[in-house]
Amino acid sequence: MVFYKLLFMVKLVTLGEILIEFNSLTPGPLRHVNYFEKHVAGSEANYCVAFIKQGNECGIIARVGDDEFGYNAIEWLRGQGVDVSHIKIDPTAPTGIFFIQRHYPVPYKSDSIYYRKGSAGSKLSPEDVDENFIKSATLVHSTGITLAISTTAKEAVYKAFELASTRSFDTNIRLKLWSAEEAKKEILKLLSMYHLKFLITDIDDSKIIVGESDPDKVSKELSNYAEIIVMKLGPKGAIVYYDGKKYYSSGYQVLVEDVTGAGDALGGTFLSLYYKGFEIEKALDYAIVASTLNVMIRGDQENLPTTKDIEMFLRDMKK
Amino acid sequence: MVFYKLLFMVKLVTLGEILIEFNSLTPGPLRHVNYFEKHVAGSEANYCVAFIKQGNECGIIARVGDDEFGYNAIEWLRGQGVDVSHIKIDPTAPTGIFFIQRHYPVPYKSDSIYYRKGSAGSKLSPEDVDENFIKSATLVHSTGITLAISTTAKEAVYKAFELASTRSFDTNIRLKLWSAEEAKKEILKLLSMYHLKFLITDIDDSKIIVGESDPDKVSKELSNYAEIIVMKLGPKGAIVYYDGKKYYSSGYQVLVEDVTGAGDALGGTFLSLYYKGFEIEKALDYAIVASTLNVMIRGDQENLPTTKDIEMFLRDMKK
Amino acid sequence: MVFYKLLFMVKLVTLGEILIEFNSLTPGPLRHVNYFEKHVAGSEANYCVAFIKQGNECGIIARVGDDEFGYNAIEWLRGQGVDVSHIKIDPTAPTGIFFIQRHYPVPYKSDSIYYRKGSAGSKLSPEDVDENFIKSATLVHSTGITLAISTTAKEAVYKAFELASTRSFDTNIRLKLWSAEEAKKEILKLLSMYHLKFLITDIDDSKIIVGESDPDKVSKELSNYAEIIVMKLGPKGAIVYYDGKKYYSSGYQVLVEDVTGAGDALGGTFLSLYYKGFEIEKALDYAIVASTLNVMIRGDQENLPTTKDIEMFLRDMKK
Amino acid sequence: MVFYKLLFMVKLVTLGEILIEFNSLTPGPLRHVNYFEKHVAGSEANYCVAFIKQGNECGIIARVGDDEFGYNAIEWLRGQGVDVSHIKIDPTAPTGIFFIQRHYPVPYKSDSIYYRKGSAGSKLSPEDVDENFIKSATLVHSTGITLAISTTAKEAVYKAFELASTRSFDTNIRLKLWSAEEAKKEILKLLSMYHLKFLITDIDDSKIIVGESDPDKVSKELSNYAEIIVMKLGPKGAIVYYDGKKYYSSGYQVLVEDVTGAGDALGGTFLSLYYKGFEIEKALDYAIVASTLNVMIRGDQENLPTTKDIEMFLRDMKK
Amino acid sequence: MVFYKLLFMVKLVTLGEILIEFNSLTPGPLRHVNYFEKHVAGSEANYCVAFIKQGNECGIIARVGDDEFGYNAIEWLRGQGVDVSHIKIDPTAPTGIFFIQRHYPVPYKSDSIYYRKGSAGSKLSPEDVDENFIKSATLVHSTGITLAISTTAKEAVYKAFELASTRSFDTNIRLKLWSAEEAKKEILKLLSMYHLKFLITDIDDSKIIVGESDPDKVSKELSNYAEIIVMKLGPKGAIVYYDGKKYYSSGYQVLVEDVTGAGDALGGTFLSLYYKGFEIEKALDYAIVASTLNVMIRGDQENLPTTKDIEMFLRDMKK
Amino acid sequence: MVFYKLLFMVKLVTLGEILIEFNSLTPGPLRHVNYFEKHVAGSEANYCVAFIKQGNECGIIARVGDDEFGYNAIEWLRGQGVDVSHIKIDPTAPTGIFFIQRHYPVPYKSDSIYYRKGSAGSKLSPEDVDENFIKSATLVHSTGITLAISTTAKEAVYKAFELASTRSFDTNIRLKLWSAEEAKKEILKLLSMYHLKFLITDIDDSKIIVGESDPDKVSKELSNYAEIIVMKLGPKGAIVYYDGKKYYSSGYQVLVEDVTGAGDALGGTFLSLYYKGFEIEKALDYAIVASTLNVMIRGDQENLPTTKDIEMFLRDMKK
Repeated sequence: MVFYKLLFMVKLVTLGEILIEFNSLTPGPLRHVNYFEKHVAGSEANYCVAFIKQGNECGIIARVGDDEFGYNAIEWLRGQGVDVSHIKIDPTAPTGIFFIQRHYPVPYKSDSIYYRKGSAGSKLSPEDVDENFIKSATLVHSTGITLAISTTAKEAVYKAFELASTRSFDTNIRLKLWSAEEAKKEILKLLSMYHLKFLITDIDDSKIIVGESDPDKVSKELSNYAEIIVMKLGPKGAIVYYDGKKYYSSGYQVLVEDVTGAGDALGGTFLSLYYKGFEIEKALDYAIVASTLNVMIRGDQENLPTTKDIEMFLRDMKK
Repeated sequence: MVFYKLLFMVKLVTLGEILIEFNSLTPGPLRHVNYFEKHVAGSEANYCVAFIKQGNECGIIARVGDDEFGYNAIEWLRGQGVDVSHIKIDPTAPTGIFFIQRHYPVPYKSDSIYYRKGSAGSKLSPEDVDENFIKSATLVHSTGITLAISTTAKEAVYKAFELASTRSFDTNIRLKLWSAEEAKKEILKLLSMYHLKFLITDIDDSKIIVGESDPDKVSKELSNYAEIIVMKLGPKGAIVYYDGKKYYSSGYQVLVEDVTGAGDALGGTFLSLYYKGFEIEKALDYAIVASTLNVMIRGDQENLPTTKDIEMFLRDMKK
Repeated sequence: MVFYKLLFMVKLVTLGEILIEFNSLTPGPLRHVNYFEKHVAGSEANYCVAFIKQGNECGIIARVGDDEFGYNAIEWLRGQGVDVSHIKIDPTAPTGIFFIQRHYPVPYKSDSIYYRKGSAGSKLSPEDVDENFIKSATLVHSTGITLAISTTAKEAVYKAFELASTRSFDTNIRLKLWSAEEAKKEILKLLSMYHLKFLITDIDDSKIIVGESDPDKVSKELSNYAEIIVMKLGPKGAIVYYDGKKYYSSGYQVLVEDVTGAGDALGGTFLSLYYKGFEIEKALDYAIVASTLNVMIRGDQENLPTTKDIEMFLRDMKK
Repeated sequence: MVFYKLLFMVKLVTLGEILIEFNSLTPGPLRHVNYFEKHVAGSEANYCVAFIKQGNECGIIARVGDDEFGYNAIEWLRGQGVDVSHIKIDPTAPTGIFFIQRHYPVPYKSDSIYYRKGSAGSKLSPEDVDENFIKSATLVHSTGITLAISTTAKEAVYKAFELASTRSFDTNIRLKLWSAEEAKKEILKLLSMYHLKFLITDIDDSKIIVGESDPDKVSKELSNYAEIIVMKLGPKGAIVYYDGKKYYSSGYQVLVEDVTGAGDALGGTFLSLYYKGFEIEKALDYAIVASTLNVMIRGDQENLPTTKDIEMFLRDMKK
Repeated sequence: MVFYKLLFMVKLVTLGEILIEFNSLTPGPLRHVNYFEKHVAGSEANYCVAFIKQGNECGIIARVGDDEFGYNAIEWLRGQGVDVSHIKIDPTAPTGIFFIQRHYPVPYKSDSIYYRKGSAGSKLSPEDVDENFIKSATLVHSTGITLAISTTAKEAVYKAFELASTRSFDTNIRLKLWSAEEAKKEILKLLSMYHLKFLITDIDDSKIIVGESDPDKVSKELSNYAEIIVMKLGPKGAIVYYDGKKYYSSGYQVLVEDVTGAGDALGGTFLSLYYKGFEIEKALDYAIVASTLNVMIRGDQENLPTTKDIEMFLRDMKK
Repeated sequence: MVFYKLLFMVKLVTLGEILIEFNSLTPGPLRHVNYFEKHVAGSEANYCVAFIKQGNECGIIARVGDDEFGYNAIEWLRGQGVDVSHIKIDPTAPTGIFFIQRHYPVPYKSDSIYYRKGSAGSKLSPEDVDENFIKSATLVHSTGITLAISTTAKEAVYKAFELASTRSFDTNIRLKLWSAEEAKKEILKLLSMYHLKFLITDIDDSKIIVGESDPDKVSKELSNYAEIIVMKLGPKGAIVYYDGKKYYSSGYQVLVEDVTGAGDALGGTFLSLYYKGFEIEKALDYAIVASTLNVMIRGDQENLPTTKDIEMFLRDMKK
């Protein structure tokens, strides 16, 4: 028996906004929700924790406000094993937050109200991107959200991708943050400048970026930009395209509490298992379990499973 | 940008008892439920709010007690946009209440314990029926519940139907309020005296009233009494009979929290969309969405959708 | 027995921002609070409801976002009897919100985190001030908060005060919204331009505005600006200065849950009782009961008492 | 070590209505309370459990409805050790219930809304009074509430007192059940017919019954009717008059959650300790601890202490 | 109308450990669960209450600690109608408890963390087995859990089975309490010594005991040991083997909250209905309803249905 | 603006058991508490977090089980900034837990039920005491609890104190863990072997150890063993004895939710401020604020204040 220690094998660095999530305790329109439950969220933070849960290391480059919610984010992520040494406390702006409305007006879907305009997180800028930190990483990851939240945040992604040897990107288009046109323009611009090892996307985003919704056609269009393309299909599972091959892994039917963060669970788990040496197919099968468990609870990070937990799931559940 | 305003097109007036609902926080027999959640309910109040949500106007003729629950009802309904000018505060009796037991002994069904005998609501009487108020309405609506709660309440319905140009009636038989025989006798008597534009019913009620459970046969039996007959089929959807035509609209499979009030959601939404100029088929399709959303939460009125919300649902859900 | 009706005698119009309040369910630093309870708040909305509870009428000039929280505010206030016809839905900005941290680091005190910068409420502007609406009011009221949230909101206050025959103002300085210097300059400017019938303030604000913390000296300094000055003293009660007279009414020692909104409760109740014809001393005695009840719960408006409730309190409690 | 067994020394039989209590989770007017907590209550049931907690036996003569709340009452009381063999299930009426509003409009006081008119409990009648059961009791107890709820319930008290060798009575006047005049007339009539061993009352009730509020004068007026008179003084403690002596025991200042049931806690504990052989003064000192603990929680019976618990309290608390 | 009375026809005596269950309020890994809900559980106590709900009598032989949880267990079970006269309070050890983790890592499954090592319950010993109590029983029942918790507890089962005329046993293997090898050895030893009237088991346990997972083969292997064998199949229902016959009754698809205790619900209900004179097939059909309702809530005993409740379920639900 | 970083000045190492605390949501006997709230606790862990909150560093030597509660403890403490590198995961035993009963039977006091016998924490042993880790610390601290939980844990304290240059000890006698005699013997033995810089104790413990309850006499008796003696006086404050001087700092009257952990808050804050260079008197004044805030919430660590928070408290509160 030795002292408790997190033994990391590979390091991921993500750039993005950490958010405090206020999830509705009851489904229905928020005007009639009386109680809200606080969680730590933000796509890149979710990726980080999912990555760590498979036994690898992750650090995040981000800013939070000098307020209770900012310290909340840091303490929680440090607790989860995230390297928080590159989170800046920005005293000029508040920590970004959002509210989740669940199952209304569309059952099994969630909607968000953001209070992140002008947030500390959106003040992320190239000066926050420490070259040594980036160089220490095997993989650098960001998402369309970081491109959208501010010009300086976008520039931070450019700087990080410039410095990075290996890159991952999740399109994650949020139409509350920018228009479809802007999203398309900015994402294609980034893709054309930096070749990716991993591109994670879904049907809705693909329709915006390449005007296609058939996964195979999308993958063809995007194959120049990335080595491995993961196409998320929601409850139906996901497809991975790589080396000219295609592998479809189906989803599981479970009771949906809140779908927020399911894509990040899938992406972060897949990346981490890939670096743990899993076959791509197996990594995807496992990653789908992570997103499946994720939709069963409120909160984006609390149900992120370890590799061992995923294996217990797989032993018991039949597709 | 102009000041906030409810622009009503058509006015409905309903007569009935407004109730305070105590819904169990956890499913199972009430003896083991420790916490109860308060809501405003009552079939005719539910109809009213559903009607308003589609952009029309509604007023209710009712009595509540001079107590916290009575003021609760008025403040909530006024908040929802209901014309509360014809609710009387009756200092001689308490506001009626009920408790809901959910998923026991029959999963996905709810049962009620009423404390409404001698309630203020049951003291509704013809003197409360203001001729001008009735005449201001395009449509006057009541239900079998109002016929059952007291003789004076029944007489109030008669007076209102006498004064009304157009009438709607939901059979809503509650066997805790009267026997099947009484229900049959009283409802048929009312139907035979006042021709309805709308008759809303379901299989169980039909069996009592006309001794039939086949929707087509029921509609045939009832066709003399009403122009448009809506036959609710629970989770299976509903059928509308009109102009010798029949249209069946199927239901949606969703997670049931509490079915109480689903029929009112369907009825009130259907009536309002009809007056908004929707085709009858489309009105029914939309109304089913309202009842579907309704069963997903506790509370009868909180999930009543606007026309826009229904359209978002329809875009996303596949039958 | 007649139909339920709010019989208003005098009308108050207030201008300000309606906020959604997220109160912590448990005391302590917000980072460790897991659950938040939603309420409708905002100083001028609080004044409005307190005013109505004594049997007078109140309307509010404000903007909310085209979002669930905006509709929440309107429905709640309409339910409470507020004239909401002059609330605008502004689709360009979100409804302002805030979080309350209770009893930490100072027991029995509350602290707030605002998310109201750029909010719909801060977009209040002179164009929203309807001359007829102002003219229909016996009294027009606003607070230092409205001066602070934006230039257009400040201008709206100026326009309203220009049109108003009688004015009331609560200094309500929030140092999270502006500096002490700005507050002093802007409030003195307003006071010098429009003579007030009522000026409501407290020791901390007075120190900023006139550099004094002795109530008598403050009242002397401010006596040129207003006919009646109410000096709030927190748990110690309040003093009113008028006609060269001074009346001190002591507070009550009760269990403090959240002090937010206590000053508005006192102010709104005092104004309304004054117009109901109460002696000034008695109006203050009663108003202190309103603020006392207010601190015993979370939420700014739920415990606002009617005149009758205040009298029940006074019969039972000993100073 | 032997099997668990309740070793009863003396038996009390009470007659009255068992109620289900819905206590508000938050203080303030009930219209704004969203959640209610269920408890078993009713003055005579409270007496019973308090009596048992000191190691004596108690049975209750009562009726409950054939509904979940009725079975709830029986199962809870049986769990607490009450002899429930003389509770009748009356299928013709519902179990009586009530709601508690706390700290509004008077801090530290509670108010009730009853739904007990026509309840199963009020149908208690002389036929329910089993002679053998009464004869098995060392003491028979009832309260002013049972006299007030119905004529048959009052007659049941008469029959039980007629059969009883030793009697106890708590005046417990509830002005929501009868007028002060009726209360006075009926209670004096009972007192004049049956001499009591114990009369438990308070200042408010005394004022109604004998027109006096000075405890000494009251005790003088009532001394013909009872051997031992306990005068409850609320938070100030209580006085006992016996054998021409007077003993005052002061109360404790604690945080009040809900005062409902505190008098029953005092009365039931006092009676039981008396029969356990305690000196009257000591029995009163202990009984005050029971009522003190009782006001610190919601629920009338959950905090009723054992003799040992009272002794732990006394060792730690200073008057 | 007569006094309320439990009319028992047949008596069951069970031996085992009563536990306090702390069920997680939210699904997911326990480290992220903030709130826990307390219930009374323990397989043999569950059997007891299920048995009683069908109108028969049950007593339990067990030990609990001299602590709040021990008294909690006794009061609850007495409330439910259990004969608690043979529960001993053991002051030398605490009442056993456990925590339930739900839906993680396997959806619809539950996992437990026990704190029962050295518990009062595990100190059950032959001296607790009162010969007269056993002889008063029509049937004596225990489970593999009681064999596993301690040597003295196992010896108590032996003593009880020796004294019993008719025996029932549920294999209930918990691999957190003993190894598969031990379980196999001990259970087979018991079976070989005492012939059973009822043996209740499931596929997983059968695989351990007889190395088979095909129900028919299992039943063949076990047929020497027991007259009637019930093979539980989880959500798929159950099979009963008797008199060389086999009857399969399918399960119902319902929303799973917590499966803990479902097997006990099935077993206890089946045994009781058998003794109530039901046909074996019908007893199994009904018993499956009990286990179905059981999985819909947290808590092992709160949803145990009466025969009448089962019949309401069957009238409404289609297999 | 630089990256977020905890800048530690001085390092404390503590040895002891980390516990998971289940605090009752409502006051009263645990049998009637339905919901429990989970927190991380344990005296030495509390000291650690209090120490860190003043800007110094702390590591803990401890064992937790290989279970959800063990990981819970590690993640939480890491989140709070604790050096968790010397916590061992012991797969042979569960993480220790305890339940808190509040305000019963003594108002404002708390009682505990432990499930820590044989826990992973109690398996702490000298082999866990890493010499380098101890040598890296400015101060090494433990408590009477660690001496009491097991022989190996006690030996671990001896080893650590042997290696340490500077030592602190809190007597913290828990009579549920050992007898007064054992406590006295073991604590005096430790004190006689290792001279302390800091000895923290209270009246009850002193009575056991030196048979005195007068603080001055106690300090005289203990002055040979320690340089600085802190005598905690509960709500009355504390006294510090040093250099032949005595300083008394009074407490604050606040609303008590749960006193558990208040002493640790005082001790840990005092030690840290001492090393931060505060005058001893001032350090004690500040430390009392920490314990005051601590009793206002459930949970031992959530309300531990920073130096800045303490200063805000002191500015506002009057002794």
